[in-house]
Amino acid sequence: MTPAPQHSLTPDQDLRQRAARVIPGGLWGHQRAAAVPRGYPQFFKGGKGARVTDANGQSYIDFMCAWGPMVLGYGNEVVDRAALGQIAMGDSLNGPTPHLVELAELMVETIPHADWAMFQKNGTDATTACVTIARATTQKRKVLVARGAYHGAAPWCTPSLLGVTSEDRAHLLHYDYNDAESLKAAVAEAGEDLAAVIVSAFKHDLGKVQSAPDRDFATAARALCDATGAALIVDDVRAGFRLNLGGTWEEVGVRADLSAWSKAIANGYPLSAVTGAERFREAAAQIYVTGSFWYGGTPMAAAVATIRELHRLNGPALMKASGEAFRQGLSEQAARHGFEVDLSGPAAMPLMKFAGDDELSTLGEQFCQQALAEGVYLHHRHNMFLSTAHDAAVIAEALERTEKAFTALAQNRRT
Amino acid sequence: MTPAPQHSLTPDQDLRQRAARVIPGGLWGHQRAAAVPRGYPQFFKGGKGARVTDANGQSYIDFMCAWGPMVLGYGNEVVDRAALGQIAMGDSLNGPTPHLVELAELMVETIPHADWAMFQKNGTDATTACVTIARATTQKRKVLVARGAYHGAAPWCTPSLLGVTSEDRAHLLHYDYNDAESLKAAVAEAGEDLAAVIVSAFKHDLGKVQSAPDRDFATAARALCDATGAALIVDDVRAGFRLNLGGTWEEVGVRADLSAWSKAIANGYPLSAVTGAERFREAAAQIYVTGSFWYGGTPMAAAVATIRELHRLNGPALMKASGEAFRQGLSEQAARHGFEVDLSGPAAMPLMKFAGDDELSTLGEQFCQQALAEGVYLHHRHNMFLSTAHDAAVIAEALERTEKAFTALAQNRRT
Repeated sequence: MTPAPQHSLTPDQDLRQRAARVIPGGLWGHQRAAAVPRGYPQFFKGGKGARVTDANGQSYIDFMCAWGPMVLGYGNEVVDRAALGQIAMGDSLNGPTPHLVELAELMVETIPHADWAMFQKNGTDATTACVTIARATTQKRKVLVARGAYHGAAPWCTPSLLGVTSEDRAHLLHYDYNDAESLKAAVAEAGEDLAAVIVSAFKHDLGKVQSAPDRDFATAARALCDATGAALIVDDVRAGFRLNLGGTWEEVGVRADLSAWSKAIANGYPLSAVTGAERFREAAAQIYVTGSFWYGGTPMAAAVATIRELHRLNGPALMKASGEAFRQGLSEQAARHGFEVDLSGPAAMPLMKFAGDDELSTLGEQFCQQALAEGVYLHHRHNMFLSTAHDAAVIAEALERTEKAFTALAQNRRT
Repeated sequence: MTPAPQHSLTPDQDLRQRAARVIPGGLWGHQRAAAVPRGYPQFFKGGKGARVTDANGQSYIDFMCAWGPMVLGYGNEVVDRAALGQIAMGDSLNGPTPHLVELAELMVETIPHADWAMFQKNGTDATTACVTIARATTQKRKVLVARGAYHGAAPWCTPSLLGVTSEDRAHLLHYDYNDAESLKAAVAEAGEDLAAVIVSAFKHDLGKVQSAPDRDFATAARALCDATGAALIVDDVRAGFRLNLGGTWEEVGVRADLSAWSKAIANGYPLSAVTGAERFREAAAQIYVTGSFWYGGTPMAAAVATIRELHRLNGPALMKASGEAFRQGLSEQAARHGFEVDLSGPAAMPLMKFAGDDELSTLGEQFCQQALAEGVYLHHRHNMFLSTAHDAAVIAEALERTEKAFTALAQNRRT
């Protein structure tokens, strides 16, 4: 065999060079080329179960789950069978398929606060529709958002102000997550013009230690909305269908008026949803929100299969158990190698931070690079995700590999 | 066999009743239940080629093409093979697949104004990103929009103001499509703060007679943007990949700075795109727009297959020829039966209006109901769509049926 030329590019390098010519910045948004950690691949071929394969053919035990959607693992056969069945019939049609009704019924059964459901494509579509429905119902304008929280990438909520006008944010007021006093102050600031309080399912701000919702804070948020008539919106886009099938705030005994869902809802098929209480139904019917692909049957068939499968398996309990085993293993390994790590957030959505790391210090990034070399795909700044495909054997194999990564990290520190 | 109970519901009626309980208004948006023409089915099972089948099992020759996406017909085997190939590998992954680069390269080759491409899920995502990129590039704010034009369903552009604040529209100014003088006046009104002029590919306002872009208007729009530094944005979401593969304004010899695409781009798989000129690349890389499913490989694989197949077949020429045959046949039938009809718009995207019809008069609606009964699915207020699956035999069969519909309409008029 002829050896490859010495300077030949890997498939990933070749794709990056080509992307740089025809795609702004090589890639934009949350997967932007500039934010791919050093040494990480940018392009992928496929995935199966808990494993993902990059464009170079390297396979990894994956703890990102496509940034959340793959709640039953890549290529789940039950979900794909449902999707392929609808594709064989036709996806986009002149109207919805029966899966629309089946899915709305299943969500209303599954989610205690929900009297109705409607569907979109992006998480941002869902959070934006919640705000629009809240304003249409209350005929008020102010929306309270936690400082640092992420609710999507539309002008009213995107984390960058580039290309956005100040008017796009005119009616936002801010509070601190899990701080009932700051929420009360923001409610007072809104005065008679309060339309909604939007809360993340838990605190998962990029690069920051994660926190569960505090029960007192959640109760106060509910009481303030009840007292003012504002809508309590829970943004369950990132956490929904992974922690509690009824909605993440079921864990603290507080029910939303409106919830936004996406990511895990259809195990990777593009779909988002809004669920709501009766009081908000009329406005939800009257506002004008739509999209060319919002009525397609395939993602809805996939969502029905995904939610049923999560019920059947008790998916959240499986993911919690696996996440706890992974977290405990990582903690023990870190301690044994002399590293102090903070594993915050729900077990199924962990974030690992090394003590002393900040934006410039990179122990976390170095560890993830070592883990990648050992065949484990982690993220050092964004919360990670587990799926039901992350069973005990996968976690054990992942921990064998992270042990090697910690060993290498400790060796690097000494040299 | 036991006969069905006398008052049993059809599947469509059953689905409507169930939908009314769990879906606001029974269905929202452009497919809202309240807007389904009388006698039309709301729910669908599937489609193949130029035919669609409703939930009751009735099959129709379809002139809506799922409201645009099905440019190669339902269940196109070339496109579905490409999509299924990627689904078998994995759709949503930790990063994009090579199809992202392949598709961006193909769009840059196909679309003369395009130096780069980026992708989203909804047409609204694409038009909104165009506006954001224009503002980020120019550091100006005003956006000129034609009165009555549809550019999506986000707060800045949705046709209903319910739940939207006046600030969401703060920087919009209006002109009349195909009226260069009114555009000049709007440019003057924007003064030093002009970011963009957005134009529909052609005038396709709901329920109104359609118009091609006037060459003098298009040239004036280009010149005004050149003179002021504003971005000329062509919204090709509805018409793109159906009339001219290089973009609809190639027909009038004017090139956009930014274009928005969706609908037909992937023959029904959910995808939208922005293409842009070099000057706008940096801002496109720097604004923050993203979505959980924006990097999925399946719709991109489908889009590559769709665009290649449209090139191979010369799809726009086929659809134009079929559309002209259909339009001529309808005109002749109408005249023979004593009706005056106006068939406006491009042949592949016709709108048929009966003389004297207004919002209350319903000859158009009655004709469409008769056509439906004869197995032809038309729309009386929204432009229709042809696909490459609408070949001469399909058009001939459709015209045999519309002849019967005109006969019935004429008989009804006499009684």
